[in-house]
Amino acid sequence: MDPREDSGIPAEDADAAPHHGYSSNKEAYLRRLKRIEGQVRGIARMVDEDKYCIDILTQVAAVNKALHAVSLGLVEEHIGHCVVGAASEPDPTLRADAIDFKVKEATDAIGRLLR
Amino acid sequence: MDPREDSGIPAEDADAAPHHGYSSNKEAYLRRLKRIEGQVRGIARMVDEDKYCIDILTQVAAVNKALHAVSLGLVEEHIGHCVVGAASEPDPTLRADAIDFKVKEATDAIGRLLR
Amino acid sequence: MDPREDSGIPAEDADAAPHHGYSSNKEAYLRRLKRIEGQVRGIARMVDEDKYCIDILTQVAAVNKALHAVSLGLVEEHIGHCVVGAASEPDPTLRADAIDFKVKEATDAIGRLLR
Amino acid sequence: MDPREDSGIPAEDADAAPHHGYSSNKEAYLRRLKRIEGQVRGIARMVDEDKYCIDILTQVAAVNKALHAVSLGLVEEHIGHCVVGAASEPDPTLRADAIDFKVKEATDAIGRLLR
Repeated sequence: MDPREDSGIPAEDADAAPHHGYSSNKEAYLRRLKRIEGQVRGIARMVDEDKYCIDILTQVAAVNKALHAVSLGLVEEHIGHCVVGAASEPDPTLRADAIDFKVKEATDAIGRLLR
Repeated sequence: MDPREDSGIPAEDADAAPHHGYSSNKEAYLRRLKRIEGQVRGIARMVDEDKYCIDILTQVAAVNKALHAVSLGLVEEHIGHCVVGAASEPDPTLRADAIDFKVKEATDAIGRLLR
Repeated sequence: MDPREDSGIPAEDADAAPHHGYSSNKEAYLRRLKRIEGQVRGIARMVDEDKYCIDILTQVAAVNKALHAVSLGLVEEHIGHCVVGAASEPDPTLRADAIDFKVKEATDAIGRLLR
Repeated sequence: MDPREDSGIPAEDADAAPHHGYSSNKEAYLRRLKRIEGQVRGIARMVDEDKYCIDILTQVAAVNKALHAVSLGLVEEHIGHCVVGAASEPDPTLRADAIDFKVKEATDAIGRLLR
């Protein structure tokens, strides 16, 4: 079994898209990422138009903040969905392994966000 | 005088673009921002394709890192250009004020990057 | 019920210390925090002895890094212990609430670390 | 010449302590670091008393924030004092080198704070 599959969620339909924590908010995430993409394009335009460096840095900080909000949302849904999913695995040995794997993976991802 | 003008840099030609610290590396900054824009678009595609949340978080961390590198570059050129420019203002009173203004402004921008 | 109690962990002995995720590594955490305390004292000594500001900033960055490692460890144990504990609550309604509460709480704490 | 000496500041008295940017606020820095040291000791006490992990994480975030404020203060005084000091070096060749050195050094230190 691929430990990255969401444990505890029966794969009823092989053609179905996987159900990750964020799937229910997919449209909202896509809108936020679209806006961030536009902000990055705006920063490039500021550089191209020789705007003042401090104003550019302020925009970079705004993109950082928007990305942080997106990543926190993903972390929240990952913990609530994938980690908790692992905890509902019926076999105790598989469950302990699945939990350890998911928790370690989530913590590593958070560590990369903290840098 | 607008304190945001680069002190000490004579405005020889009113039509010339302002010379900020990053101007000489403009093309490199535009390339890096283009790449970051593509990375953000890639994250949106991952969300759209229901990719695994941890892999998305890894990409978000990569964009954070790339933005940090851009902002550090801008900070370096701002300090070396605008702050040092203020320090070459001949009038001592104007110079002290210009330096204070630029240093405070740079520190505030760094504080926003540190969050 | 105090939602901050570790759900799913029976309170067998009222006098027992609560069992948090980090309890088994308590000595290691105390040693690391002792070392961080010493590092902060070392920074104060550097300021007192007029050491070079850049060297002081390097030490501050080292303390930041050590604190990040401690907080990541606490996050890992919190998710693996308290969040997963909530997921083992037998009553489905209580369980859903307990999970939501713990996940939100963990995400808020991570958000404060990201600032 | 040690490029880490504050260029442009005459060494009038060999016995005098070096004058770094933060020297005039030394007492304030020492007080803030004393308080941070106490906060770290408080975190160790919370671990020792098996306090709730989320509350410990909140305190760690508070120490991070206090350290950030200290480092921003040091960065501000370093730029205003050491970088600007380099800019007042009378010999143009030495000046350009001293500025480059100081600006690079400051940016590297900021980069370590951003991680």
